[in-house]
Amino acid sequence: MKLVRRRTRKIPRRTVGAVPGTLQIDPEAPPTTVRVMAYGPDGLEERDIDDLEDLPGIIGLNPVTWVNVDGLGDRNTLTRMGELFNVHPLALENVVNVPQRSKVEEYGEHLFVVTRMAFLEEHLDTEQVSLFLGKNFVLTFQERAGDCLDPVRDRIRKGMGRIRKAGADYLAYALLDAVIDGYFPVLERYGEHLQELEELVTSTPDSSTVARVNAAKRGLLSLRRAIWPQREVTNALMREDLGLFSDVTRLHLRDCYDHVVQIIDTVETYREIASGLLDIYQTTISNRMNEVMKVLTIIATIFIPLGFLAGVWGMNFNTEASRWNMPELNWTWGYRSALILMATIAVVMLLFFRRKGWLGSSPPAEVSPSEEER
Amino acid sequence: MKLVRRRTRKIPRRTVGAVPGTLQIDPEAPPTTVRVMAYGPDGLEERDIDDLEDLPGIIGLNPVTWVNVDGLGDRNTLTRMGELFNVHPLALENVVNVPQRSKVEEYGEHLFVVTRMAFLEEHLDTEQVSLFLGKNFVLTFQERAGDCLDPVRDRIRKGMGRIRKAGADYLAYALLDAVIDGYFPVLERYGEHLQELEELVTSTPDSSTVARVNAAKRGLLSLRRAIWPQREVTNALMREDLGLFSDVTRLHLRDCYDHVVQIIDTVETYREIASGLLDIYQTTISNRMNEVMKVLTIIATIFIPLGFLAGVWGMNFNTEASRWNMPELNWTWGYRSALILMATIAVVMLLFFRRKGWLGSSPPAEVSPSEEER
Amino acid sequence: MKLVRRRTRKIPRRTVGAVPGTLQIDPEAPPTTVRVMAYGPDGLEERDIDDLEDLPGIIGLNPVTWVNVDGLGDRNTLTRMGELFNVHPLALENVVNVPQRSKVEEYGEHLFVVTRMAFLEEHLDTEQVSLFLGKNFVLTFQERAGDCLDPVRDRIRKGMGRIRKAGADYLAYALLDAVIDGYFPVLERYGEHLQELEELVTSTPDSSTVARVNAAKRGLLSLRRAIWPQREVTNALMREDLGLFSDVTRLHLRDCYDHVVQIIDTVETYREIASGLLDIYQTTISNRMNEVMKVLTIIATIFIPLGFLAGVWGMNFNTEASRWNMPELNWTWGYRSALILMATIAVVMLLFFRRKGWLGSSPPAEVSPSEEER
Amino acid sequence: MKLVRRRTRKIPRRTVGAVPGTLQIDPEAPPTTVRVMAYGPDGLEERDIDDLEDLPGIIGLNPVTWVNVDGLGDRNTLTRMGELFNVHPLALENVVNVPQRSKVEEYGEHLFVVTRMAFLEEHLDTEQVSLFLGKNFVLTFQERAGDCLDPVRDRIRKGMGRIRKAGADYLAYALLDAVIDGYFPVLERYGEHLQELEELVTSTPDSSTVARVNAAKRGLLSLRRAIWPQREVTNALMREDLGLFSDVTRLHLRDCYDHVVQIIDTVETYREIASGLLDIYQTTISNRMNEVMKVLTIIATIFIPLGFLAGVWGMNFNTEASRWNMPELNWTWGYRSALILMATIAVVMLLFFRRKGWLGSSPPAEVSPSEEER
Amino acid sequence: MKLVRRRTRKIPRRTVGAVPGTLQIDPEAPPTTVRVMAYGPDGLEERDIDDLEDLPGIIGLNPVTWVNVDGLGDRNTLTRMGELFNVHPLALENVVNVPQRSKVEEYGEHLFVVTRMAFLEEHLDTEQVSLFLGKNFVLTFQERAGDCLDPVRDRIRKGMGRIRKAGADYLAYALLDAVIDGYFPVLERYGEHLQELEELVTSTPDSSTVARVNAAKRGLLSLRRAIWPQREVTNALMREDLGLFSDVTRLHLRDCYDHVVQIIDTVETYREIASGLLDIYQTTISNRMNEVMKVLTIIATIFIPLGFLAGVWGMNFNTEASRWNMPELNWTWGYRSALILMATIAVVMLLFFRRKGWLGSSPPAEVSPSEEER
Repeated sequence: MKLVRRRTRKIPRRTVGAVPGTLQIDPEAPPTTVRVMAYGPDGLEERDIDDLEDLPGIIGLNPVTWVNVDGLGDRNTLTRMGELFNVHPLALENVVNVPQRSKVEEYGEHLFVVTRMAFLEEHLDTEQVSLFLGKNFVLTFQERAGDCLDPVRDRIRKGMGRIRKAGADYLAYALLDAVIDGYFPVLERYGEHLQELEELVTSTPDSSTVARVNAAKRGLLSLRRAIWPQREVTNALMREDLGLFSDVTRLHLRDCYDHVVQIIDTVETYREIASGLLDIYQTTISNRMNEVMKVLTIIATIFIPLGFLAGVWGMNFNTEASRWNMPELNWTWGYRSALILMATIAVVMLLFFRRKGWLGSSPPAEVSPSEEER
Repeated sequence: MKLVRRRTRKIPRRTVGAVPGTLQIDPEAPPTTVRVMAYGPDGLEERDIDDLEDLPGIIGLNPVTWVNVDGLGDRNTLTRMGELFNVHPLALENVVNVPQRSKVEEYGEHLFVVTRMAFLEEHLDTEQVSLFLGKNFVLTFQERAGDCLDPVRDRIRKGMGRIRKAGADYLAYALLDAVIDGYFPVLERYGEHLQELEELVTSTPDSSTVARVNAAKRGLLSLRRAIWPQREVTNALMREDLGLFSDVTRLHLRDCYDHVVQIIDTVETYREIASGLLDIYQTTISNRMNEVMKVLTIIATIFIPLGFLAGVWGMNFNTEASRWNMPELNWTWGYRSALILMATIAVVMLLFFRRKGWLGSSPPAEVSPSEEER
Repeated sequence: MKLVRRRTRKIPRRTVGAVPGTLQIDPEAPPTTVRVMAYGPDGLEERDIDDLEDLPGIIGLNPVTWVNVDGLGDRNTLTRMGELFNVHPLALENVVNVPQRSKVEEYGEHLFVVTRMAFLEEHLDTEQVSLFLGKNFVLTFQERAGDCLDPVRDRIRKGMGRIRKAGADYLAYALLDAVIDGYFPVLERYGEHLQELEELVTSTPDSSTVARVNAAKRGLLSLRRAIWPQREVTNALMREDLGLFSDVTRLHLRDCYDHVVQIIDTVETYREIASGLLDIYQTTISNRMNEVMKVLTIIATIFIPLGFLAGVWGMNFNTEASRWNMPELNWTWGYRSALILMATIAVVMLLFFRRKGWLGSSPPAEVSPSEEER
Repeated sequence: MKLVRRRTRKIPRRTVGAVPGTLQIDPEAPPTTVRVMAYGPDGLEERDIDDLEDLPGIIGLNPVTWVNVDGLGDRNTLTRMGELFNVHPLALENVVNVPQRSKVEEYGEHLFVVTRMAFLEEHLDTEQVSLFLGKNFVLTFQERAGDCLDPVRDRIRKGMGRIRKAGADYLAYALLDAVIDGYFPVLERYGEHLQELEELVTSTPDSSTVARVNAAKRGLLSLRRAIWPQREVTNALMREDLGLFSDVTRLHLRDCYDHVVQIIDTVETYREIASGLLDIYQTTISNRMNEVMKVLTIIATIFIPLGFLAGVWGMNFNTEASRWNMPELNWTWGYRSALILMATIAVVMLLFFRRKGWLGSSPPAEVSPSEEER
Repeated sequence: MKLVRRRTRKIPRRTVGAVPGTLQIDPEAPPTTVRVMAYGPDGLEERDIDDLEDLPGIIGLNPVTWVNVDGLGDRNTLTRMGELFNVHPLALENVVNVPQRSKVEEYGEHLFVVTRMAFLEEHLDTEQVSLFLGKNFVLTFQERAGDCLDPVRDRIRKGMGRIRKAGADYLAYALLDAVIDGYFPVLERYGEHLQELEELVTSTPDSSTVARVNAAKRGLLSLRRAIWPQREVTNALMREDLGLFSDVTRLHLRDCYDHVVQIIDTVETYREIASGLLDIYQTTISNRMNEVMKVLTIIATIFIPLGFLAGVWGMNFNTEASRWNMPELNWTWGYRSALILMATIAVVMLLFFRRKGWLGSSPPAEVSPSEEER
């Protein structure tokens, strides 16, 4: 599993100085499909829309109509959608020129909300969801097909909870709540990943470990950038002035706000933990270097003096030129004395190192992460 | 003692996109038991409730009724409790889907408070306490049996202080105060633990020390996350608008707020101290590496040149081929001169190292933590 | 490409204690040229102005007049411009004594806006644009010829969008928007540059890499200083009190504000990434040092003991003086045994090192930046 | 001098869940003594109070009465004091359960102020001063006898300044001002201490230096925690609503507030300086390690190759078996050539090292702290 | 040039608990001189005042009177000045007990402003300027003779600008502006100094470099402490309530405020740059250590194995005792084979090192600071 964000164009594609309100269609964007769910306490109509001109006939027939648009590749469809729902050109530009920062804006009688889903399939990925909320409709735009909104669709289809009885504002809340809930499994995966990294970093770290910790940090940074503005979004919705949200829905939004704060809390904690991992890594590396140095020092410190002694008795001073010239070479006990002296020196050195505490190699760090909180 | 938080599921268990207000019972949650203390200045009735339908008959008989629910494992009981006390489904969801961030919310006529107890038995652990305050009752939910509220129970039983004469608001305050007070012994343990770690880090640190310091840092991070929102909670209670709190109780809440601020202060100080320990650790390690290097350098620097000299006089140039070929080998004083020269070089080297200050090994850091403030 | 800011005099040239309102012309400033675009829904007049006294005759003939001044080297022209447009001396001083921090100030009936363009040709460079907005004119001053405003000119010339139909306030917005948009390509280049640096830092970093990372950090710091105050500028314009901005233009300013926030977000993220690169660099360097040490230790630890043994058997103890003096020299298997012993020691050492995991050189960090988000 | 805080129980002694308002007397607290100064423009009465029941008779006789209580060890005296002055039980609990955070609270008609004195005798120490201000009295509680309030007593006794003419509010201000002023000599000592540490850290640092810098940092952290809340206290007093403070005294409080801000400024600067010292220490240590490595490298790099050469000519190839076998051993110039070659190699190496700049040992850091600002 | 602050007593000289409003004359303070400039549109009178009693006769004769007092050593003069201008004792104490934090305070009808000049002659130094502004006079106190206000004096003398026509408020502004402008040349010097340090740090850093960078950091810290409160001062003046400042002067104050913000910006940037220099230093040092280690490793790794081989063939095994004992010594090609083997090993090692990239010494960091922005 790679918990890094898939490479996406994080800076919106803008032609410098383009006319404001221009739709800058990404040529790689998938084609646009439109699907409608219109429902009320008594019924549900769900179908794909091939001809946009059918839309006006559908809206208003049911208490709530949810029009979902997947794929931002078809300029004509998008422009026509904008006209049908009376969307301001600047808002439509924000829908298309992804990514935008999450935000809430009022345009006349409807509310424009930009939010962001987080996925973790093979990579971390985020996708912009733009939502227009009117009196009796919700209009959503997504970058690609596939989303985390299926539970909401199920609840509508099966009439679970109060969604079928409530208005468009409750649908908007339910969609936002589903988007926010989608961050929890992502966080859970990051929690597990950090635990793996911690075990790695204290046992067998190599230089790729740092790269992985950094990748995790960067992924968390992405998450942070995605979730922070959503706090403001939820807060703004609770306080909006257009009167679109009922008191009951506001109560639910308060709950949703709590979830966002909880996600932010967790992301910040994970970021601190990831930073701590780098400290542990540095320590592990220092300890290893230390151990390498100790081995070198022990070996060199024992054998260099001994080698010197052997060198002395390997000198060729002429024992016959003087009786003071290396007489030990001719002693009966000479060689044995030399060996015993050398052994004594080695033992003394070893005792010195033991006293220094260098002989016991430092044990691996004993963190039992199973007892750690994530 | 391990001052690390027990591994708990820090992210609430949520089925993505579940219907809001759904109780997601943790299959491992302990079964639910209900206990009532109903009291007034004149009397006290305390008993376990087996049949929830007895409850309505008890409430209102005494000026104050405290219903305590331990264990979140029994969906029926919890749901029925919610109905009996007219608890909003979203609030009940917050009770069950632990952990929630500490907060205060108004629901109609009663106040919903989420707070968090800290324990330190074998591990650091925290547990959510959810509290509903009505006109004449307090309803508390705890994750498990066992809490830090026994002193409050004792005061009710023995009629100590003003608790029996005061209303439900004072009971709510007393419970909150007991929860907050429970952080002080935890902090005291952390203070002692940091002192132990400091002694360790300046005397015989190994790589497990860093892991322990990090564990302490993480535990403090958990405490911080638990206590910070409680500040807001206490503050919000002092300022609540429902008129549930009397002026006297508000005065007590101000005191409680001071305790929270004091705990926050201490946690932040401990976090700074823990970070400082890592600096000291790095320094201790650097000093050790330095000492290792010095020993290597002293030994190598003395004996490598001497070894070279011995090597020179061990060369086999033919002294008979020329009178310039190693004539010293045949000198009467040759060997003795060589040895004296070597000894002289060694002494000069040692003097050089003493002048450099390398011979005195650096003493261990002298912190006398007994004089340090925690 | 060098993503460092060209050396410019960042502190405005001020004669200490000069009379406030004095124009302190930089002797190296390019000469001043004036160009006018006067337009309305029905027409466009565009021409260079050689004689400033023509200006009063032009303004007012068309609904909107844009007077652009390039080059701040000509005191007379600038002073005369100030008189013609009734510019306050302090404002004019701010125009000339570049660089000034971006800001909005009201002077009587017109608005004075200081903003800052960012370029990235060979180096990162920024240039001050000063803008005066009156009822029916916009007056801009630039440090040098050449800017990022050509798209606006094109839109005026070709009548694209609503610019020809809108008033001077919309022109001011359009210019500001073009200035802000000019940061996006700069950011994109920095994104690519950071990616290159990341590849470098994990593969073949040398000391120039740190210098380059630092240069990028400093460039980002410049960008940050340039863009932060623009947030305040955009915000102040949305809230200005003179009534110069229409509601429609304010809506567009809100969009512009979003872009500024997005740029700030990205700059902050890049700064975090750049700081992370220095961590990776440190790690790479540590790993290399470690590897160097390992090679030294392996070689020294194997051959120093072996060299000692060879030295022992190279001693000249007289085998004839005693049968205990180095008898092995005369053994039939002496030499072969010695070689076998040495080989055995070497093999044992190698096994020890393999067990320590020192023999496998640590692989280069495996970041696959193609999967990273920028 | 040890600039570390004496080990005190930093977390107030609390029996978990005790009845709020309970006095938890520290068994080690010194006994309680009470002393009264009652004065007005015309006279002064100063005496120890042995029987608390005398107190009511004294208060009111003079315009201002200052009752000072030293030592918090006597429950009865403290309780009776509380009753006599109508002190709220929660306030009295705050007086006794030290340490409390500095704060201002209104209780009915009088003001309760908690502040904190800083001492530096052998160790840094702080002591809580609790102050009650009524219409015509000031009541102070101190943990121990001995304080920094003698200058105020002198001024009262000698009638210096306006203190005898002013009311109880001015006395309260004067006491607070004396407490604040007591921080300046402490800061001065820290300034000198940091200067000593800086000299140490750049000249002969050892591992105890880091411990001392850390102790200083921790002491400054204590000071910071003690002084920060006092800013709020002074501010709150300037803005209090009970009308206890006259305009003149408020002017003096403004002055007092300035002193607090100045102390905070200095503490923050000292903290930055102390952090900088750790950087310098790290650098000094790195430089030393570098120097050690250089000596090792120079010696080893010169003598290991020379030793190798000596070893070559010490080989025992039989010169008689072939004329190609070590013929140089028999050359007339053999030995001399060998020595000359070795000397040449050594000189070349030395030149190489000089070119690398390794021979000049790096000079000690030249900070002339006498020119530094503290 | 030393860009460190001259050692000054940064904590004001206070006798603990002194009577508030006491002038604590520094015995080393220079004697006090008084000089008056009284002027209006029509005339200027400028002279030294020897007898303070002349002052009342001068004030009021001209529209504006500026009384400047240099030197704070003469208690009588200062006290008398205070009486003449009706200065509050607390304000006068702030004038004398330098240094005070910059601030604005209202005392009855006049405004008391404390500000701070920055000088950079041999050292960085700051000096307090205290300014009283009344209806028709400005009274300034400086610690020493010599200031940066001469340009203002010149403008008054020569009647440049509007100063002679404007009131005392404009004079106060002009003085403040001159004080603020005095920071720009100081900053410019710091900019150059940082550039020098950057060149040093990437080319030939030694341990004194860190000390110099730290000195620069500390100097910038001093500047920061001096300039930050001036922002508040300028802001407070723009908003003061006494009506002393005319609208025109407020416009000029807005300009002055911009300069302060610009200085703050630059100081913060310089502080970041200085911190970055320490990173570069650490890197340079690490690289050097790395290079030292590489040289040691290359030499040792090549020659230790060769030395071992030489040692083997220097062993004295008796070739005559067995034909297996060192037969190579008697081979015709023995010596030549040995030398060739050794050379081969050396070459193989060198190839190994080249492949590792250790042979090319890392080039010095290539920052071309001439292209950097300051």
